[in-house]
Amino acid sequence: MRFFSDNAAAAHPKVIEAIAASNRIDTAYDGDEWSRRLDGAFSDLFETEVRALWVTTGTAANCLSLAALCPPYGGIICHKDAHIEVDEAGAPGFFTGGAKLILVDGPGAKLTPEAVSAACDRIRDDVHQVQPAALSITNATEYGLVYRASEVAALGELARQRGLAFHLDGARLANALASTGDSPADATWRAGVDTLSFGFVKNGGLNAEALILFRTELADEIAVRRKRAGHLASKGRMLAAQILALLEGDLWLDNARAANAAAQALAHAAPGRLLYPVDANEIFLKASADEAARLRSLGIDFYDWGEGEIRLVTSWDQRSEEVDRVAAALSGL
Amino acid sequence: MRFFSDNAAAAHPKVIEAIAASNRIDTAYDGDEWSRRLDGAFSDLFETEVRALWVTTGTAANCLSLAALCPPYGGIICHKDAHIEVDEAGAPGFFTGGAKLILVDGPGAKLTPEAVSAACDRIRDDVHQVQPAALSITNATEYGLVYRASEVAALGELARQRGLAFHLDGARLANALASTGDSPADATWRAGVDTLSFGFVKNGGLNAEALILFRTELADEIAVRRKRAGHLASKGRMLAAQILALLEGDLWLDNARAANAAAQALAHAAPGRLLYPVDANEIFLKASADEAARLRSLGIDFYDWGEGEIRLVTSWDQRSEEVDRVAAALSGL
Amino acid sequence: MRFFSDNAAAAHPKVIEAIAASNRIDTAYDGDEWSRRLDGAFSDLFETEVRALWVTTGTAANCLSLAALCPPYGGIICHKDAHIEVDEAGAPGFFTGGAKLILVDGPGAKLTPEAVSAACDRIRDDVHQVQPAALSITNATEYGLVYRASEVAALGELARQRGLAFHLDGARLANALASTGDSPADATWRAGVDTLSFGFVKNGGLNAEALILFRTELADEIAVRRKRAGHLASKGRMLAAQILALLEGDLWLDNARAANAAAQALAHAAPGRLLYPVDANEIFLKASADEAARLRSLGIDFYDWGEGEIRLVTSWDQRSEEVDRVAAALSGL
Amino acid sequence: MRFFSDNAAAAHPKVIEAIAASNRIDTAYDGDEWSRRLDGAFSDLFETEVRALWVTTGTAANCLSLAALCPPYGGIICHKDAHIEVDEAGAPGFFTGGAKLILVDGPGAKLTPEAVSAACDRIRDDVHQVQPAALSITNATEYGLVYRASEVAALGELARQRGLAFHLDGARLANALASTGDSPADATWRAGVDTLSFGFVKNGGLNAEALILFRTELADEIAVRRKRAGHLASKGRMLAAQILALLEGDLWLDNARAANAAAQALAHAAPGRLLYPVDANEIFLKASADEAARLRSLGIDFYDWGEGEIRLVTSWDQRSEEVDRVAAALSGL
Repeated sequence: MRFFSDNAAAAHPKVIEAIAASNRIDTAYDGDEWSRRLDGAFSDLFETEVRALWVTTGTAANCLSLAALCPPYGGIICHKDAHIEVDEAGAPGFFTGGAKLILVDGPGAKLTPEAVSAACDRIRDDVHQVQPAALSITNATEYGLVYRASEVAALGELARQRGLAFHLDGARLANALASTGDSPADATWRAGVDTLSFGFVKNGGLNAEALILFRTELADEIAVRRKRAGHLASKGRMLAAQILALLEGDLWLDNARAANAAAQALAHAAPGRLLYPVDANEIFLKASADEAARLRSLGIDFYDWGEGEIRLVTSWDQRSEEVDRVAAALSGL
Repeated sequence: MRFFSDNAAAAHPKVIEAIAASNRIDTAYDGDEWSRRLDGAFSDLFETEVRALWVTTGTAANCLSLAALCPPYGGIICHKDAHIEVDEAGAPGFFTGGAKLILVDGPGAKLTPEAVSAACDRIRDDVHQVQPAALSITNATEYGLVYRASEVAALGELARQRGLAFHLDGARLANALASTGDSPADATWRAGVDTLSFGFVKNGGLNAEALILFRTELADEIAVRRKRAGHLASKGRMLAAQILALLEGDLWLDNARAANAAAQALAHAAPGRLLYPVDANEIFLKASADEAARLRSLGIDFYDWGEGEIRLVTSWDQRSEEVDRVAAALSGL
Repeated sequence: MRFFSDNAAAAHPKVIEAIAASNRIDTAYDGDEWSRRLDGAFSDLFETEVRALWVTTGTAANCLSLAALCPPYGGIICHKDAHIEVDEAGAPGFFTGGAKLILVDGPGAKLTPEAVSAACDRIRDDVHQVQPAALSITNATEYGLVYRASEVAALGELARQRGLAFHLDGARLANALASTGDSPADATWRAGVDTLSFGFVKNGGLNAEALILFRTELADEIAVRRKRAGHLASKGRMLAAQILALLEGDLWLDNARAANAAAQALAHAAPGRLLYPVDANEIFLKASADEAARLRSLGIDFYDWGEGEIRLVTSWDQRSEEVDRVAAALSGL
Repeated sequence: MRFFSDNAAAAHPKVIEAIAASNRIDTAYDGDEWSRRLDGAFSDLFETEVRALWVTTGTAANCLSLAALCPPYGGIICHKDAHIEVDEAGAPGFFTGGAKLILVDGPGAKLTPEAVSAACDRIRDDVHQVQPAALSITNATEYGLVYRASEVAALGELARQRGLAFHLDGARLANALASTGDSPADATWRAGVDTLSFGFVKNGGLNAEALILFRTELADEIAVRRKRAGHLASKGRMLAAQILALLEGDLWLDNARAANAAAQALAHAAPGRLLYPVDANEIFLKASADEAARLRSLGIDFYDWGEGEIRLVTSWDQRSEEVDRVAAALSGL
């Protein structure tokens, strides 16, 4: 029973079908019929004109954006536990040509306008200190908390005032929207977001993520950067087809709801152990080494997070009997 | 009838089957059972211990290698028509941190030891001029010529004498080996090659290329660089599975033979028009604008190469009746 | 008798005096009274409002400009013998984050609008090929030829039409202006130049060059880049003072005239040997190995340029008896 | 009365004399007689064979070193208040190609082996997290504390165990050595230091710093990087001459002693206000806004450090009557 990461789950059968169905010759790169439908599909979803590019990983989606939003000599404000800081092997430094991540703290990897403002205020406005050029948040956060649209909007307003571009790492945006009920538009561009890494791989996709540009004028530059970073697949249709399959009939939202529901079931089984509220599909729990061992002896696979802490992540395809068994195991600790 | 590029052909059905078959949860990134079989599979193929990493594009395969072989302040000797110079959007500069491509000329995009030596000799050995650190060749070349193993070995010996690392862009290595009959080992590491971009996408794969490291000590660094460049797919099993499917029963070699045979058929139809010998699966032909228009009116799709020149590329799945029709059209011009 | 390079000549005594005179505490970096006078001094000289930054080398001046004018994924068109291509150790790649130099040929390291246009036309307008973003010329060229203001203007007009920024490497701009009699304004911004590396080190300075920004909005970014590249000296007054001393009473122009006059004297001594017209202060001559040895035996120091070719460079402080002796030696070969 | 920064003080008269004395033609770059004496002079000072390169700023000295010690994908452990983190405009990211500064805390900007070990232990050993490759400390620290040789050695031993290269930012190493009485050798290579930025500009120099390589095999690479970064001055003799003048008769040590003595006089005048022990030539004091204003009204120039904190820095040429007046003013607050 794998609760290790949604990262490693299987792809949805419709995604595999879509790959097979797109397996015929068409124009190379992103000139094919599937890729050419992406802009329209996402413009509909977001209720505004956007440009959408497929990429194969969230790291690439995040860092291609950041490179377009922040000059090599600028800074990107993010949480100290943000994925771009902690788990991307320094990719932001590589893609931007050496921009600096300016780290801000806050519970549950969530940023507040106050914390961001304070970070900006600590920086002297001279050539000796790196000046902030962009703000990046993750929704849902790395600890499974969600920003409501109004919270994103407060950060967006601050970004506007401070002259910062605003990037949203939405590796689990689907889970966040399934949790809050906010519309895609409200949680992004209406809240001031400029670019979005819209995650599909953790939510039923195989290896396709979407990079959504609400500032459409960035698309040409980012398309060049995508090629230059070796991310322009020659048979891009297979990436576009995956995304279109997940957009079809809001399958992406159904998948996220399923994962969230499984997480709620686990959270309710062990309310006293929760380290953070469970807003999306990640559950962080207190558990001693002995308790962790006991869970593992029951065939449950998860991540040791820190001393006395464990992380479980639920996926779109988590089977209910597995969820029940894990919930029972947690209750019984 | 598409003779535009092997780049855009369909994937082999076994590749699609392999993707579907690998679609179940396993360890993320490259810890899964398929990815862990790559080192062994390629060590068998190359008759020596190698390390093999999947990547999704040839540009990534080439440039991850080059970044490990050449410091930011070094130079990479390559042909002036090499893919890394002409068609990768400056990716070598991005991945290496600004290394310089030192361009050498020669017919058919093929390098000779004499031309490489002369290029080295033109460089003053001081801090003002960029010193060469690596040599990169493409086999088959961008004009469809192949290097025989002995020719590679002559360049490999020169690289050794000059202290240059040796990279082989093998986007169409399969076609080259199918053409020469050389063994994979003879055409690579026995000829002094350090790292190889082994192409599968143009030869029946969907979006998986293999980066083969004959200097196995480079693997750890390149694995880090792969992550840092956003190329570490979380469900890497789908990439490994493609490659394994093509290695199985030498399917890769059958595919390349089929593409080469189609190219030979076309070459024989218009021997007087050939701009280069047809060693692999690319055919460069003299054709006036009128003649090109005539071919297109027959439903043949191809690339205008230069003034009065066209390029046709054959794929693994080129149907024989299409080849016959195109051959007839060429004869009839 | 050193005719090796103006690079290595002594500084003018007034420059040393100026350094000594500025040797008292003042605001650090470029906040001191000397540095703050630069914008005004150069705005007067160029008859328009400019921003002027000191740097210590021509390589830094060139590459700080180019990094502001060309994105990492862009190209810079220059002559294949340009200093930025041949003699700066790949610095443009370092400062720009991997931009590509797009090389153009032409006699005497001089570019023509036709050659630049042809280079642009060879580039496909897609994401696979690096698109040109800037044009860089050197005046006087690396072979001692000068562009007249009208020639610069023709290139400037082309740059405007093609959407290219226009950079001028003026390591020997003083010699060029002394040669043509063009005004600083006519030879630069009125001809479409955006940024200028104005050389002083080869012309009586010690280690101060001026980076002149006709597009004044670039100054803030370049000031940050200067710091980030370790080029913001804390006692910048000593650099500004050198430049101001050379501007005073047009000492820079007197120095250049003296160097040019010495070069003319040598050119007239051996008109049949000249490889290029001598417009400024460099003389390229045919000379066999025996002849070169004969000159050296007379105590004349110079550079072997190629097979059967030598280079002599005259400096602002070349003594006339030395010039006479070298002229006699050349005549007597 | 300027107690703003030693950065902005005048150069020692012998330095100006040395510049004037070296103002004659010689081989360009670092081939001149002064530059060629540096290796020997510093090998004598450090009692071991070293390679020594002049550069014009401390930022360049630090970052050229770090680029040679840490790959683009590596991390450099330093204090969160280190100059390379706080005051170099992101230069480490630029020079290294995007390496990450891994920040460690500790009072007075001083690192301990325990804190460095803990930082290393927090990093998972996988490709997702940036692995540390180097350790960098500043002596004297940014808050004027010094490391004794034994403290450096403890960090050096840790670096050795952890496989980290060890860099010392010695912008004020002279002040540190003058304070501890440690020998240059004991405080550096005998304590495990690999490369040293030896500061002269803050200690009587004009614009020359020395980059000392105890691992001499790094010299060739760093010499190339120096050129590539635009830091290879063509008349380098004027930089070497400054350094040689300050080494002559241990003038550098006399200068540092004078600055330290002035700092001690100020520290003794206000012992209750000291925020940190005064080991070298920087004094950090509690002072309310009113008190700061009172000091300024007496003509004393200094830096507001934080809320209710000020910084005074003494220089080699601080006149004793000025020191006495400031000491009196501090006592009288």
